[in-house]
Amino acid sequence: MTTKQIINQIHKKKSFLCVGLDVDTQKIPKHLLKKEDPIFEFNKAIIDATHPYCVAYKPNTAFYEAYGIKGWKALEKTIAYLNTNYPDIFTIADAKRGDIGNTSAMYAKAFFEDLAFDSITVAPYMGKDSVEPFLAFKDKHTILLALTSNEGAFDFQTQKIGENELYKQVIETSKSYKNADNLMYVVGATKAIYLKEIRKIIPDNFLLVPGVGAQGGSLKEVCQFGMNTSVGLLVNSSRAIIYAATDENFAKAATEKAKEMQQEMAIELSHRF
Amino acid sequence: MTTKQIINQIHKKKSFLCVGLDVDTQKIPKHLLKKEDPIFEFNKAIIDATHPYCVAYKPNTAFYEAYGIKGWKALEKTIAYLNTNYPDIFTIADAKRGDIGNTSAMYAKAFFEDLAFDSITVAPYMGKDSVEPFLAFKDKHTILLALTSNEGAFDFQTQKIGENELYKQVIETSKSYKNADNLMYVVGATKAIYLKEIRKIIPDNFLLVPGVGAQGGSLKEVCQFGMNTSVGLLVNSSRAIIYAATDENFAKAATEKAKEMQQEMAIELSHRF
Repeated sequence: MTTKQIINQIHKKKSFLCVGLDVDTQKIPKHLLKKEDPIFEFNKAIIDATHPYCVAYKPNTAFYEAYGIKGWKALEKTIAYLNTNYPDIFTIADAKRGDIGNTSAMYAKAFFEDLAFDSITVAPYMGKDSVEPFLAFKDKHTILLALTSNEGAFDFQTQKIGENELYKQVIETSKSYKNADNLMYVVGATKAIYLKEIRKIIPDNFLLVPGVGAQGGSLKEVCQFGMNTSVGLLVNSSRAIIYAATDENFAKAATEKAKEMQQEMAIELSHRF
Repeated sequence: MTTKQIINQIHKKKSFLCVGLDVDTQKIPKHLLKKEDPIFEFNKAIIDATHPYCVAYKPNTAFYEAYGIKGWKALEKTIAYLNTNYPDIFTIADAKRGDIGNTSAMYAKAFFEDLAFDSITVAPYMGKDSVEPFLAFKDKHTILLALTSNEGAFDFQTQKIGENELYKQVIETSKSYKNADNLMYVVGATKAIYLKEIRKIIPDNFLLVPGVGAQGGSLKEVCQFGMNTSVGLLVNSSRAIIYAATDENFAKAATEKAKEMQQEMAIELSHRF
């Protein structure tokens, strides 16, 4: 999927919402546990209920790997369901992979070719040759961790390397990678104020912003400091939407929560476009 | 598995060799491709052929994920085969995972509980709460990326954060994590000289050292700068052993290569113990 297609979807739906599919079988409605594939059934219901209000879905691979083969099958079925039924939706494998070159190439094959995701999150610690194998895929997007939404981000990411903090250096350095046009960045909403600095380095790239909702980030601030002339934002919400209710009405509750977020986003967009 | 058990095995076998199971179906002997599960058949043959000469096996998850469900099944069968037939062998999931707390906890469940690996490699970029969920498991080991063997290591890892390079700061900071006793570190053999500095910060922890062989690192130097009074080293070789031959004699060739490396290790051990 091209960046232009993503932007078109955002304006069409008046939404830059990404729904995180972090499925924990201890949290999904009990009646689904009787089904053959509870994780996929849950995802299918959530997707059908929320797709008019979002432009992206982001399964986090940890939540699938934790169920072994069954989980991997549910992941395969989920991405296939999305690609078949909602081809306009942007798909993100939140996998946080990254390894030496020949190994990253295998991960890229797994997520871009076999599973056919549009994008994957990648950890920057191993540098250039761990990232470039992902960037080599046309119309696929590599979403590099820059400044994450968790407390541990302060351990290294905000520490100064020379004049710059590490997260800024990661962004700066990555701009010189081959096919850097295919880069997006993860920047946590819990650190919205940092978006101002980040936009000085990368005015144009899309940012994937987790941490609005359950983790406490503010949508208003994210838009104030992070939005650019192409919108340039995908704001993720996982738990607040998918576990809005945990009884038989979970899908309806997810619709309402997603719609509520979409409407807030529509207001932010109307201020600027 | 306890660290003491690992050390006992090292002295018993006079080896600190780890064999990396990075299985690429384009590189394994053609006759195996006719089998129902070529990846597992290859691993089984390699394990049976090399286990007297090594103390650890390290499947790299990328090489399994690249084959989807089939690959994940082969990974499950491989770790089950190891745990059943060679329970004294230390097993490493080379997965390079790491995410916010609740997500890292799911990865820890996947690799420590369901797959029953003894250890996993973890990326440090997201800091404390991304690493501690792994450390919470008793007699399981978290192998943190410190200084990797690839060229990209110079992008960020060797850059100075204050007075220290980032890789040193990662090691220093991680010492304060809860259950830090369960930490090992990845340090590439291609940068053996750095081991001297690293041993000043962590004299006692085990180091997993990739990059001897195909990537050009020297075993002698790794031992000179990295060995401690408990040996403290697991030296990995992947391609040089598992693809020593790619015809029907591949297992025999792997035996010979593993034995050759074990004998070099026995000499290094005899100098010090």
